[in-house]
Order: sequence, then C-alpha cells, then structure tokens
Amino acid sequence: MIRVAVIGLGYWGPNLVRNFEAIDNAKVVYACDLVEENLNKIRRSYSSIKLTKDYREILKENIDLVCIATPPATHYEIAKDCLESGKHVLIEKPMTTSTDEALELIDIANDHGLKIFVDHTFVFSPPVIKIKELIKDIGKPLYFDSERINLGLLQKDVNVIWDLAPHDFSILTYLFDFEPERLIAIGSKLRHPYYEDLAHIMVKYDNGFIAHVHVSWLSPVKIRKTIIAGDRKMILYDDTNFFEKVKVYDKGVDIDLSKESPFFPTYRSGDIYVPKIENKEPLRIEAEHVVDCLLNNKKPKVDGYAGLKVVELLEACDKSLKEAKEVEL
Amino acid sequence: MIRVAVIGLGYWGPNLVRNFEAIDNAKVVYACDLVEENLNKIRRSYSSIKLTKDYREILKENIDLVCIATPPATHYEIAKDCLESGKHVLIEKPMTTSTDEALELIDIANDHGLKIFVDHTFVFSPPVIKIKELIKDIGKPLYFDSERINLGLLQKDVNVIWDLAPHDFSILTYLFDFEPERLIAIGSKLRHPYYEDLAHIMVKYDNGFIAHVHVSWLSPVKIRKTIIAGDRKMILYDDTNFFEKVKVYDKGVDIDLSKESPFFPTYRSGDIYVPKIENKEPLRIEAEHVVDCLLNNKKPKVDGYAGLKVVELLEACDKSLKEAKEVEL
Amino acid sequence: MIRVAVIGLGYWGPNLVRNFEAIDNAKVVYACDLVEENLNKIRRSYSSIKLTKDYREILKENIDLVCIATPPATHYEIAKDCLESGKHVLIEKPMTTSTDEALELIDIANDHGLKIFVDHTFVFSPPVIKIKELIKDIGKPLYFDSERINLGLLQKDVNVIWDLAPHDFSILTYLFDFEPERLIAIGSKLRHPYYEDLAHIMVKYDNGFIAHVHVSWLSPVKIRKTIIAGDRKMILYDDTNFFEKVKVYDKGVDIDLSKESPFFPTYRSGDIYVPKIENKEPLRIEAEHVVDCLLNNKKPKVDGYAGLKVVELLEACDKSLKEAKEVEL
Amino acid sequence: MIRVAVIGLGYWGPNLVRNFEAIDNAKVVYACDLVEENLNKIRRSYSSIKLTKDYREILKENIDLVCIATPPATHYEIAKDCLESGKHVLIEKPMTTSTDEALELIDIANDHGLKIFVDHTFVFSPPVIKIKELIKDIGKPLYFDSERINLGLLQKDVNVIWDLAPHDFSILTYLFDFEPERLIAIGSKLRHPYYEDLAHIMVKYDNGFIAHVHVSWLSPVKIRKTIIAGDRKMILYDDTNFFEKVKVYDKGVDIDLSKESPFFPTYRSGDIYVPKIENKEPLRIEAEHVVDCLLNNKKPKVDGYAGLKVVELLEACDKSLKEAKEVEL
Repeated sequence: MIRVAVIGLGYWGPNLVRNFEAIDNAKVVYACDLVEENLNKIRRSYSSIKLTKDYREILKENIDLVCIATPPATHYEIAKDCLESGKHVLIEKPMTTSTDEALELIDIANDHGLKIFVDHTFVFSPPVIKIKELIKDIGKPLYFDSERINLGLLQKDVNVIWDLAPHDFSILTYLFDFEPERLIAIGSKLRHPYYEDLAHIMVKYDNGFIAHVHVSWLSPVKIRKTIIAGDRKMILYDDTNFFEKVKVYDKGVDIDLSKESPFFPTYRSGDIYVPKIENKEPLRIEAEHVVDCLLNNKKPKVDGYAGLKVVELLEACDKSLKEAKEVEL
Repeated sequence: MIRVAVIGLGYWGPNLVRNFEAIDNAKVVYACDLVEENLNKIRRSYSSIKLTKDYREILKENIDLVCIATPPATHYEIAKDCLESGKHVLIEKPMTTSTDEALELIDIANDHGLKIFVDHTFVFSPPVIKIKELIKDIGKPLYFDSERINLGLLQKDVNVIWDLAPHDFSILTYLFDFEPERLIAIGSKLRHPYYEDLAHIMVKYDNGFIAHVHVSWLSPVKIRKTIIAGDRKMILYDDTNFFEKVKVYDKGVDIDLSKESPFFPTYRSGDIYVPKIENKEPLRIEAEHVVDCLLNNKKPKVDGYAGLKVVELLEACDKSLKEAKEVEL
Repeated sequence: MIRVAVIGLGYWGPNLVRNFEAIDNAKVVYACDLVEENLNKIRRSYSSIKLTKDYREILKENIDLVCIATPPATHYEIAKDCLESGKHVLIEKPMTTSTDEALELIDIANDHGLKIFVDHTFVFSPPVIKIKELIKDIGKPLYFDSERINLGLLQKDVNVIWDLAPHDFSILTYLFDFEPERLIAIGSKLRHPYYEDLAHIMVKYDNGFIAHVHVSWLSPVKIRKTIIAGDRKMILYDDTNFFEKVKVYDKGVDIDLSKESPFFPTYRSGDIYVPKIENKEPLRIEAEHVVDCLLNNKKPKVDGYAGLKVVELLEACDKSLKEAKEVEL
Repeated sequence: MIRVAVIGLGYWGPNLVRNFEAIDNAKVVYACDLVEENLNKIRRSYSSIKLTKDYREILKENIDLVCIATPPATHYEIAKDCLESGKHVLIEKPMTTSTDEALELIDIANDHGLKIFVDHTFVFSPPVIKIKELIKDIGKPLYFDSERINLGLLQKDVNVIWDLAPHDFSILTYLFDFEPERLIAIGSKLRHPYYEDLAHIMVKYDNGFIAHVHVSWLSPVKIRKTIIAGDRKMILYDDTNFFEKVKVYDKGVDIDLSKESPFFPTYRSGDIYVPKIENKEPLRIEAEHVVDCLLNNKKPKVDGYAGLKVVELLEACDKSLKEAKEVEL
C-alpha cells in the first residue's frame, strides 16, 4: 500500500486525491493547502484524510509519495524538502521554473535513491499512447505542428507559453528521441498587461525535424489539434473531436533524389484509418503507473529528466522572446 | 465594349477567358499560349477567339485590356510591353517577382495614363467582401492568423510562400490600412529538393497588430482558416466550410488598465452570428469590376500599389529566410 | 430545509443524491437500494446518509421528498406508498408503465395535497430552456424532427421507444401546447431477441403540426439532433455539438395562398444565429426548481400531468406497433 | 462512334451533352428543346450540334442513342417513339410515371433488340461504387437509413418523394438483391399547396431487412446521409462531407441465440476505416459505361428492369399516402 500526500488543493490537486483514492494499493493519508475552503472541500468528501495548512507537517509523517500541485514557483522548494525527508515526489508540470532547479532536484533524488515523477498527464492519455504506437509506421518523421488555442483564462504570473506549451513539449519529448537544437519563440502582449498572451514557437532538431507550437489565450474557437507528419504517413490528433481523436492518413509526397533531375514528385493520397481509442481518464492511468513503479521499483515513464527537458524548452522560449531571435539549446 | 486578350492559357487563363466572355460589355478577342494543346482547348469552346503563340502579335491589335496569366517571372516583361503598346493590364498574382519591377510597371502605367489591375481574386470573394463590412465592428484589431495548408502540388520554381501566401497578404492588404513594419519567415525544406515546402510568417505592424500566416504543401488535411480578432469581436473565416464560411464571435477579454492594479480581466463569451454569404464566383465579380473601371474610369480596387505591397512582403520573406532573422519592411 | 430520500441507486440515483446534497435548502437523509454494492458507493462518499434495503423504512421517517429512481415497472407501487405516507415524490421518467397508473397517482397526490414531480431532465437542460425562449420567434410551428440514435445498450425488458423516446416526448410536451391526435410507430427487431431496437414514430397534431422521432440502439454514429421548424425560422438543436448546440436559421419557404395561382414560392435563406448557452448541469437546475416549489408552494414545471402525457404517447406507440397501424390518441 | 441525341435541355440535359461530347467514341449530333433560350446555350458552346424544337425530327436521323431529359410525364411517349424508330434510349430518372408504362417500354425494347438505360446517376458515383465493394464485408444486412433533406426547390407537379426518393431507391436497388415486400409512406403538406413537401418512407424486405428514407424540401440544413448497417460492420455515407464521404465502422451488437437465455449481448466498437474515393464525375463514368455497352453489346448496369423497380416503389408510396396505410409490393 502506497501512502500518498497531496500538497496544493486548488484546481488540479483534488483530481490527484480522487484518482489515488480510487486505485488499489494506494491511499491518500494527508492533504495540504493554505486556503481553508480548499481543505473543506476535501474534508466533506474524504473524511479519513488528515488535513493541514503547513506542508512541513507532512514531511514528518510515514508517507511514500508526495504529490506537489502548488504554483510552479514553489515546486523546487517543496520537492526539495520532500526528497530530503525521504519521500518520492510527483510534481505538477512544469517541474520547476528553471533548469538549474530541475537539475538539483534530480541530483537530490539520485542521492537519496528516490524517484521523481513529473505530471505530464498528456503522456498518459489514451490518444497519445495510441500515437506512440502508430508513430513507428509513419516513416521518417518530418514535422510536428500543434495548435492549442482558445479564449483561455489569462494567467496572472506567467505567459501563455508556460501555461499551455508544457503539454506540447511533453508530448514531443515522449514521442521522439532526437534532440532539439535551436528554438525561436515569437509572442505578443495583445491584451495581457505584462505577459505574452499569444505565441508561436518553432523548434529545430538535429535531424532536420521541426516542431511548431501555437499557443493562445485569445482565440474565439477552441482548437487542440496536432499534425505529426512522416514521409510515409501522417497523423492528425484532434483532441476536441470526441469520436475521432486520432486519424492516420496514408498521404505523402515522394521525391527520388537519386535521379539526375530529382524534381518529379509523386503524391500518395490514400485511405484514412481511425483507430479505436480507449476511454479512460489519463490521470487514472498515470496514478496506476506511479504506484506500480513504486511497488515494483520500475523506471518512471516521465522522470526528472523528462521534466527537465520541458523546462529547458520553456526557458529557451523566454530567452528567445527577450532577445527577439533564435536561440541554441 | 471592352476588347480583351488573355496571355497564358494554363491553369488560370481559361477561367479569365470564360468570365470575360460571360459578362456584358466585354469580349475576348485574342488568346495566346506557347503550348498547342492549351490553344486547342480554347479553340474547341470559343470559335471566335483569335489564337497565337506569340504575344507580340497582340500588341498590335485593337485591344483594351490584356490579362497576363503566365508564370510570375514573365509578368514584368509582358506587362511592360502591353502598357507601352497602350493597353491596360490585369496581372496574375504575384504582380512581379521583385518590388523594383512592380514600381517600374506602376511608373509606366502612370506615364501612359493606363490602369494596372492585379488579380488578387480573394479580395473579390463574397466571404472576404463580407468580412470587410464586418470588420468595422470588431473594435481595435488585434491579430490576423491564417492557415493555408494541404497536400499541395509542390511548385518547381518557387517556395510555398510565393505560391500560397499572396492570398493571405492580399487579404491583409485589403482589410487593413496600417503599415507592416517587421517580418520574420521561418521555413523548412522537408520534401522539396530546393525550396521551402512549409513556412510560418509573422508580420508586425506599426500599431501593435500582428499577422501570422502558415503555409504548407505537406499537410494531410486541407485547412483554409483565418482568425481576425479585435478587442470587441472576433471573426473566423473557414473557406472549407461550405455552409458557414464566416462566423462572428462576440468574444473577448477586457482589461481595465486605468486601475491601479490592472490585472482583473473580464471575459465575454456570447452569441455567434453567421451571416449569409452570396454564392457567386469571385472572378466573375472581379471581371465585372475591371470592366466597370475601364468603361467609367474608376479607380481599381486592386491596383499596382496593392500588387506592390504583396510583392514587398514576399520579397521580405525571402530575405528573412535567407538571413534567418527578422527583417524591416 | 427539504429532507430528501432517494430510492434506487443504480445509474441515475447517485446523480440525484449528489445534486440534492450540493444545493442549499436540501439534505439527503436516506437512501435505499436492494444491492449492497450500490449502498456501499453512497456510504463511502456520504457518511451522514442513512441506508436501507427496504424502502418501506423510509415511509415512516420525517422526509419531505422521495426521489424514485427504480425500474419503471416499480414506479407506481413505490410512488403510491410514498404519497400515502404524506411525502412528495420526484419520479424518474417514464412516470409509470401505463396511463391508468399515472392517473391514479395524480389522484392520490391531489387527495393528499402533495406534489408529483416527474424527472424529465431535458426540460431543465440549458439548450432546451433556450429553445423554449426562441420558439416564440419561429412563426407558425410546422414540424419537429428528432434523431436519437447510437450504438446503445440494449435494454433487457423494454423496447428502444420506452428507453429513448421519453426524452423527445418530454421536450415536445414542454415546447408545444397543442394536442397530439394520431400516432404511428414502426419498429424492427433487428438484433434484440424480444424487443424493437430501431423505431420511427410519427405524431400528428390537431393543428397540422407533425413530429417524427427516430430512436435506435443500432447506429454506428451517435446522433442527438432535433429540427424544430416554423414558417418564419427554423431551429437546429444538436446535442453532440459541444460549442454550437442551438442554431437559429432565418430560412423558410413563403407561399401566397391568396393569389389565384398560389404556386409562386419565395425562399428565404438568411443569416444563422448561435445563441450562447449556459453550461450548467440540468439535474442541478431541476433539483433547485423542485426545492423551490416545495419551499414556496409553487407549481412544478413537470408535474404528474406532464408525466402522464409522455406515458400516453409511449402506450400509443406500443399499441401502434402491435396493431401495425396508426392509432388515435 | 456512337451518335447521340439529347432531348430536353433544361437543368440536366446540358450535362448529358457535355459528358457525351467529352468522351471517346461518342458524338452528340442532335439536341432538342422547346425553349429557344435553352437551344441558344447549346448553340453558343457547341457549334456542330444540330438543334430542333421538334423531337420527331430526331427519329428520322441516323442516331444510335437518344438521351431523354424531359419532364417525367413525357418520358413514356418520347421513349416509345425513339425505340420504335430503332434507337437505344437513356431515360432520366424516374423512368416513367407508372409501372405499366415502364413495363411497356421494356417490352418494346426487347421486341426491337434495343437497350434501355435509366439514368440513375448515383449508381455511377464513386462513393456508391465503393460502397458496393465494401458491402460484402458488412455481414448480414440489417437496415438502410437515408436522410435527403434541405431547403429545396418545391416542385410544381410532384411531391417530394418523386423528386428526391428515386436517388435512394436506385441506390437500394443497386446495392441489394432481395425483394421489398411492404411499404408505408407518411407525408405532410406543410408549405406546398398541393403536394407533400416532407415524407418518411419505410420499406420492409422479405428477409427482415428494412429501409427508411426521409426526404424533405423544408429542412434548414442540407443533409445527405445514409447508414447501411450489417451485423458485422456498418457504413456511413455522408455526401456533404467533401473529404470523408464513406466511413466503415467496425461496430455491432452480437447476441448468441443458441443460449438458453439469449439475452447477453456483446458490443463491438472498434476502428473506423475511411477508404479513398476517386474524384470523378458520376455522369462521365455513366456515359462511358453506356457507350461501352452499345459498342460491345454489354448488359447495362441500370436497365429498364432497374428503372421499373424504382417506379414500383414510387407508385407504392403514392398508394400508401393516399390510403394512409402500409401497402404490399
């Protein structure tokens, strides 16, 4: 039985409580938030969970895993305290607000023989799991193009990239092994007084692959659409399409570069295949995975290094926005 | 009666012939192409049109308007010859392959008291005409975001920006008066041996407005979608949606900057309005406009200066791609 | 404070518990089910609710309202017992399995000065509430056409009409006052060994209005789509369209019958209007309404007579299916 | 070379002229219409086609095939004259306005060794051709359900069934061999002064298969959607979906009737497959087929008997509407 604590009971924390409570071999024993009302919500539904406003109380308890769902700026300090108290941690995305912090947490965890899980929930969503399977058949990967836009809640203390792009960066990191080399971020403060509320990010990889991510809080329509193109097949992932989230297109352009005059492209435009996608809550799948890793000492699917990679991209976006040019990774 | 000649009978030329033949007060009297088969197609359907392989023959004839639908690299020379022979010209988009050429053509036309029309067909399409009306109500314009992607025919001699972005640049130029200041184009040669087949362009305007255009020949799905956002309303133009091409969203974010602590956004998310759009061929509307301008000496809706503006943006894209950085306009 | 009991904790009952628990002025004090596991689910989440397997225990308690979410065949007996014990009742749809039973319950309630609420949840859904407002502007109502089809769970003991058509019949009854006169139901047992799994129902009204309802458990696609047409405007209600559930079309055909030769129709095909629809759980709205009726002695929006009308239509469908012809209502 | 004449140059006739002119081995030599303007349109585009207002002139000419695209009420007489003059005929749908007429035409054609083609264009459309292939894999056919509705032009002299249902009836006749046994048609005159403008038709077949067709001139939205369900797979044909006209669903309900208590259905809800559909004009495919049949003495895909079957269903609809009950076929 894995004994779980959850720190931070705002938007996401109650989902962590609910899912760890629901699965076998885990039990939420402690929960923490600074806001009385947030504690009350947990109290009403889960009478057996101990509550506190001071997360340091949790450090002293017999707990295996601490889930940290507080604002990103506090992740580093809380995770450090937990690790140094001998607890495994599951940290909300983004893992930290700097790569230095992420690296230090990884070191501490390694020193103590503890595991860091980073809560890149999309990596556990059935459509993304299906895409990971399908991607073997797309041939040489060409590009990743994602739109994640809607009339969203402007965040007070971060730009739209830190709010939304972690989803795309975590999917990218999960799907592809090759390394990003250069990145350019272009943004605009159209309504937000301090931060970019619309941005485009272009990442170039060592093997010619490119990724483009469009994030915005200012779109009249909600779009969650990603194209992943290979030279043999292309995948469309539309997360707002309830019935057909993932489509595989037998489409492409073939160019025979071995010919003297290579410009004779041929076009393939064939069938479409829409695989059945399991309908299961991603966080449930993730919680089961975390508990399995802890009970059976398995390697996390999303560990501190995966979290670090996403923070690295986010940090580079900030640098590119500030310097108004492409930056090396 | 306006006497019309059409030079270039490949893909677009026959549409020009058909539309000028169909309207009152115009008559196609001459048509020219280097390829016998293209001439034959016209011969079969229009027995009264004179045909030639040498466009110089047309220069000597009693003709009012010459439509030039040849490859872009030839526009300058042919248009110059036509203008110097005293003929008005309607030039396919892009007007020329450089701003210098475009400026020279404008000068020649002015010297001879002739009109240049540039065939930015989208400007005459009923949805764009409707958007021009609706745009008065969107408040302060914030951004323009366009996707024009599909599995398209790779062009042999130009990149995807020169092929597809003229449509977006002409719509931008038509809808908004303010001036572009800086531009960055990012592209990739994923399948094409010589030219970019996927690109993103970001244009910044003097008043803070930004435009983003995504063009690609390598998308599994055909998307023709433009968002035009103001601080009061937002417009979605989806050209692949047969029944609801234009939607106006009563949506937005309001921030009261007069307050000491300005970060209290309010969100509007109200009704949607889908105006009825007339179903008429854009080129028919354009042909009627051109003939009306010639008969009644009216100012063209898309003159040489409008054509020049689009070429200026295209030229800047090439410069930005080459130098891999933002360029001034 | 309204003291509530819920009998039947299978699929729908827990939703009743959750919603009456969540609102002000109500409190769920008792819950009943024959299945231990169903009781356990409530026990885990709501420690203060008393549980029983015998609903007769509830009759003796100090309770204001009993919600009956048991199988339809048991509604009559349980509701009768509750009413005779002086409790108001909220009965799941369909109210009863015969009009005789429904009439008797209405009589008993009237005799005891108690209220019957029938749980026609759709009547409380924001799209249907919006349509009720919009319907004033559609002119003379012409027809109602509803598709409610998907690959659904075949019910063991009723046909697809009793399972799905109560939704449409309750919406019809809520939207329109005029009286149905004749009805024909056509169905087929394609996969179900005993009951119709696909059916079409056509209802004719005294004023020429017609309603068609298509229900099926055997469709590859999920469709929840209703057209409500008037001679001035037409409404499309698509419950599977998350963002645009209700659309009002300024469309129609006008025929001037005063003319000697009346056949000169004119067609209107104008704008579309998509009103903003509130995003609130229908059952929450309903629970608040029920409590308001009880506290302030108001007339229920869906009373026993509304429940009776739906049972009348269902009963007529069975008769029509059996006799294979149109039946009078 | 097949020498073709076209009688009737209103809406459809010019399409017949264009397609027979465009293919090899055929040549349109004569065309006929009562309206001068219709003749002029042909004259302008096809200078070599002889024109007349009197179709009897055509009977004397050396012509192989006469296409009859006049109003349905005239088909019988014109086709009879053509056949008796030794000409093959291609008759617009519906073949005739009664089964007696259709039977007589078949007899005349047989007596003269001539071919009757009936222009059921949908049978030649690439999506329907693809469905014919796919249908082998759907298992035991269960039902056909078609919606063909929009705000359509009310016809002056026929009801909506005669206008729109021939499409569905011809597709049904092409796809399935088994015999319709009984039919019920239910319609309403909501706006049309004389004829039904909205109707539902239900056809029952000898093997338990059922077909439902909904036709309407009074829908705010255009729907062209057909579900063809088998016990193994289900097909959705959506003719308004430009990119995905045909979808095959691996969906179904399985019931093991061999068991003592057979009610344990299992549900399959698997992948979707969207086959590539050729993009070719159906009438071009049909014209090529007709010419091939004539040159090589092949059996027509849609002969007089296929035309007769559709007329039989239409006639039965009229009878059912009139008698307000189910009729035998």
